[in-house]
Amino acid sequence: MSLLIVGSVALDSVETPKGKVDRALGGSATYFSIAASHFAPHVNVVAVVGEDFPDEHIELLLSRGINLDGLTVSKGETFFWSGCYDESFGDPKTIDTRLNVFETFAPELPDHYCSSGFVFLGNIDPDLQSRVVSQIKSPILVAADTMNFWIEGKLEGLKKLLGTIDMLLINALEVRLLSQEKNLLDGARKVLNMGPKILIVKRGEFGSMLITKDDLFVLPAYPINEVIDPTGAGDSFAGGFMGYLAYRGKVDLEELKRAVVAGTVTASFNVEGFSVEKLARITKDDIRERMKNFREITEFTVPEI
Amino acid sequence: MSLLIVGSVALDSVETPKGKVDRALGGSATYFSIAASHFAPHVNVVAVVGEDFPDEHIELLLSRGINLDGLTVSKGETFFWSGCYDESFGDPKTIDTRLNVFETFAPELPDHYCSSGFVFLGNIDPDLQSRVVSQIKSPILVAADTMNFWIEGKLEGLKKLLGTIDMLLINALEVRLLSQEKNLLDGARKVLNMGPKILIVKRGEFGSMLITKDDLFVLPAYPINEVIDPTGAGDSFAGGFMGYLAYRGKVDLEELKRAVVAGTVTASFNVEGFSVEKLARITKDDIRERMKNFREITEFTVPEI
Repeated sequence: MSLLIVGSVALDSVETPKGKVDRALGGSATYFSIAASHFAPHVNVVAVVGEDFPDEHIELLLSRGINLDGLTVSKGETFFWSGCYDESFGDPKTIDTRLNVFETFAPELPDHYCSSGFVFLGNIDPDLQSRVVSQIKSPILVAADTMNFWIEGKLEGLKKLLGTIDMLLINALEVRLLSQEKNLLDGARKVLNMGPKILIVKRGEFGSMLITKDDLFVLPAYPINEVIDPTGAGDSFAGGFMGYLAYRGKVDLEELKRAVVAGTVTASFNVEGFSVEKLARITKDDIRERMKNFREITEFTVPEI
Repeated sequence: MSLLIVGSVALDSVETPKGKVDRALGGSATYFSIAASHFAPHVNVVAVVGEDFPDEHIELLLSRGINLDGLTVSKGETFFWSGCYDESFGDPKTIDTRLNVFETFAPELPDHYCSSGFVFLGNIDPDLQSRVVSQIKSPILVAADTMNFWIEGKLEGLKKLLGTIDMLLINALEVRLLSQEKNLLDGARKVLNMGPKILIVKRGEFGSMLITKDDLFVLPAYPINEVIDPTGAGDSFAGGFMGYLAYRGKVDLEELKRAVVAGTVTASFNVEGFSVEKLARITKDDIRERMKNFREITEFTVPEI
């Protein structure tokens, strides 16, 4: 089934203790769509770039079978971000953000995108996210990402959006901010009451949780030997997650759990390279092998006492 | 099989956002032994208290079937600690530490303790830990806890100890400090090269990892609704872990994984009450039920792609 992502395509200059890249391919829609392309056959992108956007990046996305009919080339420069990570590989320090053509991004869906069964709203203004939702015809699952910037600055718009979507991706701090609850599980329940039926709580190097009204699934991160660049980890998680569901074409608790596994493993590859270097290079077999190993290193039988 | 714990028995004044307790029962040997008593039939304690130590605490430990032949009552006051936790329930702020009789603690094992099959060396001076090891006859598993204070101040003594034990419990920061490696898995391998065959890396609210030369097991923490007091979480984890192994009487990879589960679940109860309030009150059925639920919320089948 086809999967739509609406988000940013950017050029990122990133420095980490393992090296640096200059004006490399980045943005939420980029990481998401490449991650999803390992699972879903039809990935549709809505985003905007400037006239400076290199052809080689377009070619890379097309070579992954990603549909770019919704990628607008606008007069001006592409969204540019630069930042650096310290040795903890925690939140990066932003050095420069130039929204450029992304500042006036007003997502319009090509007609044939409107019937996408699975939809992911990247981390943009909640009003723009709502505008996308209104253009979609009978989707199976609509998921959104958000961040503290919107929780603090656009709460009403965000609450309106939450009433119309099925799933929210959010980190633990944002759950606390949005719910005004200190306990994560209490906060998650409050957020579920705002609309979404499914919550994915991202905990970075510590994994993630899937929370619904009746169910809970907790998964650690896949332990990797060498982090090179964490940029795009959340978006490649989301891409693996949604890509897997779109490939399966259905949503139930067991599929959702497997989607968390697919997302976690996809993100684990992404952080092993700068930009999308590793993410774009891996094969289905690489993913299969790591998912199998993931189960081996996490499974146990209940102790008898 | 019998299980020996050498550590502290203390009186703790603790304040958290959920309330406070004054001179409540605490100390590593206390949390460990009560946790272990839910699994192991014979738990032996070596520790020291002062003349002020309340009889009711002795009675509580005895009521759990814990052997106190190795508990010395010395002239002076019991080890006292007071601290408070903020709303993040991270590392507590220490308000007061009075070592009192614990300052000159020199563990001597009663003869019938020397044949304990399982031994846990609580977080004390590595030279004292080595002194205990030298008194033990052919144990099955000797495990130790340590902390950055000893890594920084008693590195030679600690390295000597590591050459004589089977297992080390340590947190992620301490692995980095001890190994001088930034990556956790690389650091863990270096620590394994110092002697222990098994490493347990504690990650607090994010769970734990079991690392050996050939194997890896990753487990999230058990998600709980309300943290009341995190004091003793690490020691009750260790007690549940070692108590389970002592109950089973053998050590292999599958038993070690189950021991991590037993430790995690035991610690999850401990933080739901001040001091040992909840830890001492739970039943085997409570533990069984939570272990079963833990498997349900973490298990998955490998996605087919």
